[in-house]
Amino acid sequence: MYREILGKAKSKLKGGGGDKLKLIPLGGLGEIGKNMMALEYDSDIIVIDTGLMFPEEEMLGVDLVIPNITYLKQNKDRVRAIIITHGHEDHTGALPYIFPELPVPIYATRLTQGFISVKLKEHRLLNRARQKSIQPGEKFSIGKFKIEFFSVCHSIPDSAGLIIDTPLGTVVHSGDFKLDYTPVGGRVSDFSRLALVGEKGALLLLSDSTYVEIPGYTPSEQVVGKALERIIGEAPGRVIVTTFASLISRIQQVIDAAAKHGRRVCIAGRSMEETARMAQDLGYLKAPPGMFCRLEEVHSMPPSGVVILTTGSQGEPTSALVRIANLDHRHIRIVPGDTVVISATAIPGNEGLVNRTIDNLFRQGANVVYDRLSQVHVHGHGSQEELKLLISLVKPKYFVPIHGEYRHLSLHGALARSLGVPAENVFVLEDGHILEIDRDGARSAGKVDAGNVYVDGLSVGAVSGVILRDRQLLAKDGMVLAVIAIDKSNGSMVGIPDLVSRGFVEAGGTEALMEKGRQVVVKSLDHTGNKPLEVSFIHNKVKESLGKFFHQETGRRPLILPVVVEV
Amino acid sequence: MYREILGKAKSKLKGGGGDKLKLIPLGGLGEIGKNMMALEYDSDIIVIDTGLMFPEEEMLGVDLVIPNITYLKQNKDRVRAIIITHGHEDHTGALPYIFPELPVPIYATRLTQGFISVKLKEHRLLNRARQKSIQPGEKFSIGKFKIEFFSVCHSIPDSAGLIIDTPLGTVVHSGDFKLDYTPVGGRVSDFSRLALVGEKGALLLLSDSTYVEIPGYTPSEQVVGKALERIIGEAPGRVIVTTFASLISRIQQVIDAAAKHGRRVCIAGRSMEETARMAQDLGYLKAPPGMFCRLEEVHSMPPSGVVILTTGSQGEPTSALVRIANLDHRHIRIVPGDTVVISATAIPGNEGLVNRTIDNLFRQGANVVYDRLSQVHVHGHGSQEELKLLISLVKPKYFVPIHGEYRHLSLHGALARSLGVPAENVFVLEDGHILEIDRDGARSAGKVDAGNVYVDGLSVGAVSGVILRDRQLLAKDGMVLAVIAIDKSNGSMVGIPDLVSRGFVEAGGTEALMEKGRQVVVKSLDHTGNKPLEVSFIHNKVKESLGKFFHQETGRRPLILPVVVEV
Repeated sequence: MYREILGKAKSKLKGGGGDKLKLIPLGGLGEIGKNMMALEYDSDIIVIDTGLMFPEEEMLGVDLVIPNITYLKQNKDRVRAIIITHGHEDHTGALPYIFPELPVPIYATRLTQGFISVKLKEHRLLNRARQKSIQPGEKFSIGKFKIEFFSVCHSIPDSAGLIIDTPLGTVVHSGDFKLDYTPVGGRVSDFSRLALVGEKGALLLLSDSTYVEIPGYTPSEQVVGKALERIIGEAPGRVIVTTFASLISRIQQVIDAAAKHGRRVCIAGRSMEETARMAQDLGYLKAPPGMFCRLEEVHSMPPSGVVILTTGSQGEPTSALVRIANLDHRHIRIVPGDTVVISATAIPGNEGLVNRTIDNLFRQGANVVYDRLSQVHVHGHGSQEELKLLISLVKPKYFVPIHGEYRHLSLHGALARSLGVPAENVFVLEDGHILEIDRDGARSAGKVDAGNVYVDGLSVGAVSGVILRDRQLLAKDGMVLAVIAIDKSNGSMVGIPDLVSRGFVEAGGTEALMEKGRQVVVKSLDHTGNKPLEVSFIHNKVKESLGKFFHQETGRRPLILPVVVEV
Repeated sequence: MYREILGKAKSKLKGGGGDKLKLIPLGGLGEIGKNMMALEYDSDIIVIDTGLMFPEEEMLGVDLVIPNITYLKQNKDRVRAIIITHGHEDHTGALPYIFPELPVPIYATRLTQGFISVKLKEHRLLNRARQKSIQPGEKFSIGKFKIEFFSVCHSIPDSAGLIIDTPLGTVVHSGDFKLDYTPVGGRVSDFSRLALVGEKGALLLLSDSTYVEIPGYTPSEQVVGKALERIIGEAPGRVIVTTFASLISRIQQVIDAAAKHGRRVCIAGRSMEETARMAQDLGYLKAPPGMFCRLEEVHSMPPSGVVILTTGSQGEPTSALVRIANLDHRHIRIVPGDTVVISATAIPGNEGLVNRTIDNLFRQGANVVYDRLSQVHVHGHGSQEELKLLISLVKPKYFVPIHGEYRHLSLHGALARSLGVPAENVFVLEDGHILEIDRDGARSAGKVDAGNVYVDGLSVGAVSGVILRDRQLLAKDGMVLAVIAIDKSNGSMVGIPDLVSRGFVEAGGTEALMEKGRQVVVKSLDHTGNKPLEVSFIHNKVKESLGKFFHQETGRRPLILPVVVEV
C-alpha cells in the first residue's frame, strides 16, 4: 500500500501521465491473423506489423479483413514508424490500406522489404514509401525507442523479432518464431542475443502463441527435406509439389532434391514464379544453371526428369494445382505414374478446398502424398518447450501472449505463470485493450476502437454488420420481392401484386404457392376501409403476412422485400 | 479365355441376366456421411443404412442432405428390407424421409432400434414401422439373402457389421468399426466369427475407410476413462463434460468417474437427457441409485460434488454448453475453479464453432481441457492396422472400400492391394456406380441416379442447384432491385426507375451512387427511338448496364433484379 501511494506521488511529480509505456494491440489477439500493435511512449508511437486476415465463413462476400486504425488516425502526428517483422500476409497484407493513412517510414529486413515492395507496387504505392532496410543486430532509434531486430527462424526467410529499449526497460517482441538448430538457408533463432537481454532482465515480453497447444518441440525444416528427397528419388514419373509461395526454404529443398536426382524444375503459378524470381534476385534462393524449365517444355521431357512446383496448396480455386485436379489446366494433365506432394497444411477454414483437391487428384490417377501420410510439411511456430525457453531466457517482468485466439493466449499465460512469472504480471489482452506500464507497475487502462474492417471489392470499411446480416439472411432462404402498385390519386391498390423470388423456391412448379401468396398480400391490405394506404403500413403488413404464410407453407423464412410503386 | 466363354454360356443357360449380384452405393462413397447402399440379387433388393449428411459450406440455407433414392423408388416392388448397422445419424438420419417411400421392414439390433424409434416417433411414423430386433449371431433370410449381424466396436453401443450369404458367395459389410480389446460396456469386435467366414473365403468385403490415413491402431475407449477419472478426481470445483449424446460408453465413464470421486451427475441438454433415459431403460447405461441430480439443484451443492454432462460438443449454437459459454444459460454460469472437458472432436466443418466455444469458456475463466491438450477423446473407426486385420481375416475375392471421401477409398484400395488382393478385384466406386458380380467375374456396370437431395424447411428435394447458385450470388455481394414503370399504352418508360438494395452497400451515404445508377438505367433504355420497350429487352439491358456500372464503381457484382411494372 505504501509503495503504491509513493508510486502515485512520484508519477504526479513527474508531470502526471508522462513516463508511461502503452501497449495497444490492434489485431491478432483473439484471432489468428491481421497482426498489428502500437507501442507508445510519451509523444512517440511505433506500429509493429500491419497484417490482414482472410474472411471467416459468416463474413459473406468479404475479400479481406484488416485492422481498425481509428486510434492511430486520431494520433497520426505521433506515429513515427511502421516496423514489419516478416513477409507473411498476416503481418504485411494490410499495408497497402494502412500506409496511405499513415505515410511513415517502414522498417524491415531485406527480404521482407522485397515482399513489401511487390505488394506496394501492385497498389501503385511503391514510389511514395520510404523503406528502411535493417540488418539483424543493427540498432536504430525512433523517438524514445531504441530498436534492434534479432533473427528468428520461421517459415519465411529473414524473419525477425524485436528488442526495443525504452526509458522504462526493454521490450522483447518474439515475432513469429520457432527454434530450429538446422534451418534451411537461413539464420538460427538468435537466442544468445536474448540471453544477454535476459541477463539484465527485460521489462516486457510479447510472445507468439500460435502453437502453444502442442507439447514438445516443432521439428526442423530439414525433416521435410529428407521426405521430399526420398519421394522425388523413388517416384516413377513426374513429381508435382505444391507449397506456400513464400516458403522459400521449401522451394530450395525441392530444387536441391530435384538436382540430386537429375530432374529439372518447372514453376506453375504466378505468385510462386514472382516470389522465386525475387528471392533469386536477392540471393535467398539458389539453383544450378539450367535448372529451371518452362511449362511448355514439360511434354517433351522424360517424366522422370521433371519436378513441377505449383501454387494451390490451400486449394485456391484458380490456382495451377486446382486447375490440374479439375482437368482445366492449359499445359498439364495428370497421367498414371504422377506423384503429387502437398507440402503444406490446410489453414483453418481451407480444409474442405484442400481435401477436395486431393480427392480430385486421386480421381485423375495420381499418387498423392500429404501431411497425414508422410512428414512433407512442418510449420513455422514454436511448440510448448520452445515457448518456455524464450520466457526462461528473456526473464521478463511482465508477459503478454500475442498472436492467437483466446484459448492460445490463455494457455500461453498459464505457461508463463508455470515458469514463475507472477500471475498479476501476466496480461491476457485482446484487440483494443490498452496495457499501461510505468514505474509503479502495469495495468489495464481502457480500450480503443479495434476489430474488423472489411475490404470488399474496391471499398475499405464500407461493409458493415448490417450488410453482412442481410447477406446471411439472403443466403439462408433467399428472398421474395412483392411489387405493389398504388394509385397516387387515392392511395388504393391497383391490380394484383406481383411476387418475384430468388434462392427461395424453384421458378417452375410453384405457381400455386405464389398465387396464394399474392392473395395473402391482397387480403393483408384489404381491411383498411377507404383510408389511403401508407407506404410504411404496406411494408410492415406485407412483411408480416407473407413471412408468416411462406414459413407455414415451406418452413423457410425468405427475406421479404416489399416495393411500392405509385402510379 | 476358355473359362470366360464357358461362363458366358452357363449364364445364358440360366436365363441371361439372372444369377447376378449387384452392389449399388447410394451414399457415403466419395463423401463423409449419408451412408446408404443397395444389394441386389435377382428380384430381391436390400437397403443397408439410410444416413444423412450435414450441409457443406456452399450449401447455403440447407438443413440436411439425404441420398437420392430414385433407383429404389423405380424398383420399389423388389425392395424387401432396410437394414441399419448402428444408431448414428449418418446411418439412420434419412430414415424418416426414406421410410415413407419404401415402407419395408427395418432390421437392427436392440439399441439401434431404440435410436430409430425416437427418430420415427418425432416424425409420427413409429406406428407405421415394422421393426425387427436382431441379435448378433442370429440368422435371418430376406429373399435369396441369408443375413447375420456380427458385433463391432464403435462409438455407439450395439453396432454391427453384416455377413450376407448369397448364391454367389458371402458378402461381408464391416459397418463402422474399430478393434477394441477392452471396450466399455459393449462387446468386442467379433473377429473370430469373421475368421470362420474367411476360412471358406468371402466373395466380397465392404469395409469402413474413414480412418485409413492413420497408421497403427486406434486407442481403446478405456484410455479416455483414465483421463476423465484423473481430471474429475483432481478438479478443485465443478466439472462440466460435453460429448456426443449417442456416445453412451463415454457417458458411462463419466458416471463411473463421478461415482468414484463422490460427485453426482446432472445432465443439461434435451438430446442427451433423452438418450441417457432410453439407454438406461434398455440397460445400456448403468448408474448407482441417487446418482443423477437436477440442474436446479446444482447451486445448492458443493462444487466438488458435481459433474454436469452437457450437449454442445460440436459448438451447436443453441446447445447447453454454448449457452453457458455465452452467459446465456438459465441455470449455469462459469465460476472460477470450473473445469470444462470437451470429450469429443470437431466434425469437419464444425472447427470454427467448437474453437469459438472453447475461447468463450476460457474468457469466462474456466479451465478448458480438450483433445489437443489431453486424451479426452478417441474416435470409433479403425486405423490402418485394424483395416489390414479385417482384410486378412475375411480373405475376400473382391474388395470395395466404403464410407469415405475419394482419397480414403483410394488409399484403402491401395491397402487391400498391398495385402495381396489382385488389383483388378479392387473396385474404388462412387455413389451411383453399379458393381456387378457373377460367376465370370466382377465389373462396373453403369450408373444410377445418386447424389444429394436437400432438405430445407418442410420440403425434401425442392432445393436445387439453381436455388443454391442464387443464394451464393446473393450471399457474395447482395442484390439491387431496379423497378421500372412502363406505360402500357405506348411502351415508354414512366418517371425515373427506383433502385433498392440489400447486402450490397450501406443504406446511408450511398445516395449519390444510387442516383447515378438510376441515370445509367434511364440511359441504357434511351436509344430505342419510338419503338415500345419490351420486357425481355429491359431485363437484359438493365442487368448489363447496371452490373457493369456497379462493378466499376464498387468492385462488387450484386445480383441485379429488374422488375417491370406496367401502368
